[in-house]
Amino acid sequence: MQLDRQGLADLALGAAFLGSGGGGDPYYALLLAEAEFDRHGPFEVIGLDDLADDALVVPVGWIGAPTVSVEKLPNGREAVDGLRRLEEIMGRRIDAVIPIEIGGSNGLAPLFAAARLGIPVLDCDGMGRAFPESQMAIFNIRGLSACPSILTTACGALSLIETDDNLMHERLARALSVAVGGIAHLTEYPLIGRQARDHAIHGTVTAARDVGAAIRQARESGQDPFAAMFAALAATGLYPHAGVLFDGKIADIERETRGGFSVGRVRFESFDGASRMELEFQNENLIARRDGQVVAMVPDILTVMDRETAESITTERLKYGQRVKVVGAAAPAILREAGALEFVGPRAFGFAQDYVPIEEIDAWLKP
Amino acid sequence: MQLDRQGLADLALGAAFLGSGGGGDPYYALLLAEAEFDRHGPFEVIGLDDLADDALVVPVGWIGAPTVSVEKLPNGREAVDGLRRLEEIMGRRIDAVIPIEIGGSNGLAPLFAAARLGIPVLDCDGMGRAFPESQMAIFNIRGLSACPSILTTACGALSLIETDDNLMHERLARALSVAVGGIAHLTEYPLIGRQARDHAIHGTVTAARDVGAAIRQARESGQDPFAAMFAALAATGLYPHAGVLFDGKIADIERETRGGFSVGRVRFESFDGASRMELEFQNENLIARRDGQVVAMVPDILTVMDRETAESITTERLKYGQRVKVVGAAAPAILREAGALEFVGPRAFGFAQDYVPIEEIDAWLKP
Repeated sequence: MQLDRQGLADLALGAAFLGSGGGGDPYYALLLAEAEFDRHGPFEVIGLDDLADDALVVPVGWIGAPTVSVEKLPNGREAVDGLRRLEEIMGRRIDAVIPIEIGGSNGLAPLFAAARLGIPVLDCDGMGRAFPESQMAIFNIRGLSACPSILTTACGALSLIETDDNLMHERLARALSVAVGGIAHLTEYPLIGRQARDHAIHGTVTAARDVGAAIRQARESGQDPFAAMFAALAATGLYPHAGVLFDGKIADIERETRGGFSVGRVRFESFDGASRMELEFQNENLIARRDGQVVAMVPDILTVMDRETAESITTERLKYGQRVKVVGAAAPAILREAGALEFVGPRAFGFAQDYVPIEEIDAWLKP
Repeated sequence: MQLDRQGLADLALGAAFLGSGGGGDPYYALLLAEAEFDRHGPFEVIGLDDLADDALVVPVGWIGAPTVSVEKLPNGREAVDGLRRLEEIMGRRIDAVIPIEIGGSNGLAPLFAAARLGIPVLDCDGMGRAFPESQMAIFNIRGLSACPSILTTACGALSLIETDDNLMHERLARALSVAVGGIAHLTEYPLIGRQARDHAIHGTVTAARDVGAAIRQARESGQDPFAAMFAALAATGLYPHAGVLFDGKIADIERETRGGFSVGRVRFESFDGASRMELEFQNENLIARRDGQVVAMVPDILTVMDRETAESITTERLKYGQRVKVVGAAAPAILREAGALEFVGPRAFGFAQDYVPIEEIDAWLKP
């Protein structure tokens, strides 16, 4: 598959939705990718089946608070610097890159570097959405090591981390991201081809592009972009249930940058004032309560979208008065296994709540 | 020169004084060195003149809050792990190690690793005392790079830092030290032999041992250990003036662990209650005020000592009621140059005060 200019825009649109509010607004990543497209032509995206067992595959993405990412812009070289240094450290060439998370700007993070290194992006990712912490990647859930990982910054500083303990890795990388100003680029969980094939979440780059394309096409033809998006999500086979959980306007937003994250809560009111919703977020939207009742929670996807255009509004872009729909979608099945929920379920985020799938709480989501 | 068991104890005693309250209490470092002495025999300390121009020389030491160092003990392998990884990264053997700072436990930090690697310790250091921040080393003052540096921990986590900016290096290393619990081991400012010879502060390992030996011998022979220490300090040629700035007891101590440092102030009262002194510290004692007047300041040395035994009391060991003498000593001349004061003078620590040498404020210190 090749990503052209249209494909890039569609990918950005779809990745923004899959980010569940996080992963950073894809706007700047899209600008960087478009500029690179103008220089080098289409980006090559290949399937995991086209990969040698012993290929070296490296996930990349940004770590930090999305609130910072809209003020402290990337220079585009961060992933390239990290990947090249990793090649030196490992003594071999990297064969392909993947987004550590398909959600938000991180869904586009590998493109620029892939073009510069002349290697493809694999059609997969490590989260099937976006999550705030590094150990929430499927690769940690499956027992693979985050290290050696390399953190790079626009100012050229580079840090290599080596530890067997993926939680310690998150702690070190997070501390570094705060020390360099709140956001940094991370290459982590280097994999061989077989590990990528066995453990990555397949098809998510294509899925994000398809979801984005559906929204765009509906807009162009004057159809309902939400309905088109729900159909496209189901068609991916990864996100079988999705629907509008709330329709209204933002009545209140609390947000702070704390511990290297953007943390807060946002409150919505229906237009008739009869109903309310509240979302809590840590970079990503984590849990939704409608009139006091939980209606969706991690790892299911929760994204606030402009109610007319179905443009996703990442958590750092939420503002008082925005007229929105809050959309929920079922997470990929791989994230709903007991072993995964330990790392990405509601209790992993401190909620005293067992995971209940969105389509069980909101039974009308089922076909 | 060889350091035997007696030499080790003397070095610990002298280094504790030169630490100006910081560098960590040498007690645990001494235990580790003594155990290694029992296994491998005396430690070899060589002069800078015995070093090849292109030798690889690596300063080592601990970074963090000394308050943590007395609770979170080293395993002894931290420096070895860092040095071995640095050898891999640089593709060559390390020829000698030096203490990044002679003060406190860091004066003994290279011994264990030197014995394990079968290499000598050079008779020099990077600070001539102890300072709280990495960029306060003479090597930064002289424009050399801190990187590649390697931070290691008792739990085995390792981080490599590469940046041209030594202040950024301090920020990254500090953040990592906090993330791993408040203290970590750092190999930094790798040098070639010629750089070590041109820029390190010569003779400080011998000086610390001589100062310690003088204190011990005075104790053994029932003489005044303070007078013996002042004579020994002057005899080193590095610390020409020293004397007792205050005699009394600790009346108040405020201390917190903040930003990766142990920060606070300690107040003293004379036994007749007629006079007071206050020291402010950031790991190290920085400035002394007697009855409201500044009597000594960085980079001059300020150490609180038991008034009977002349045992140095590092800032993390200060307690209400201790009966002490506060001793000041002139810093090595190299630290008093304008280019050095920019990094280690009172303004570098936020005091609105130009540097005045201790022997000018307290003229009686001059012979």
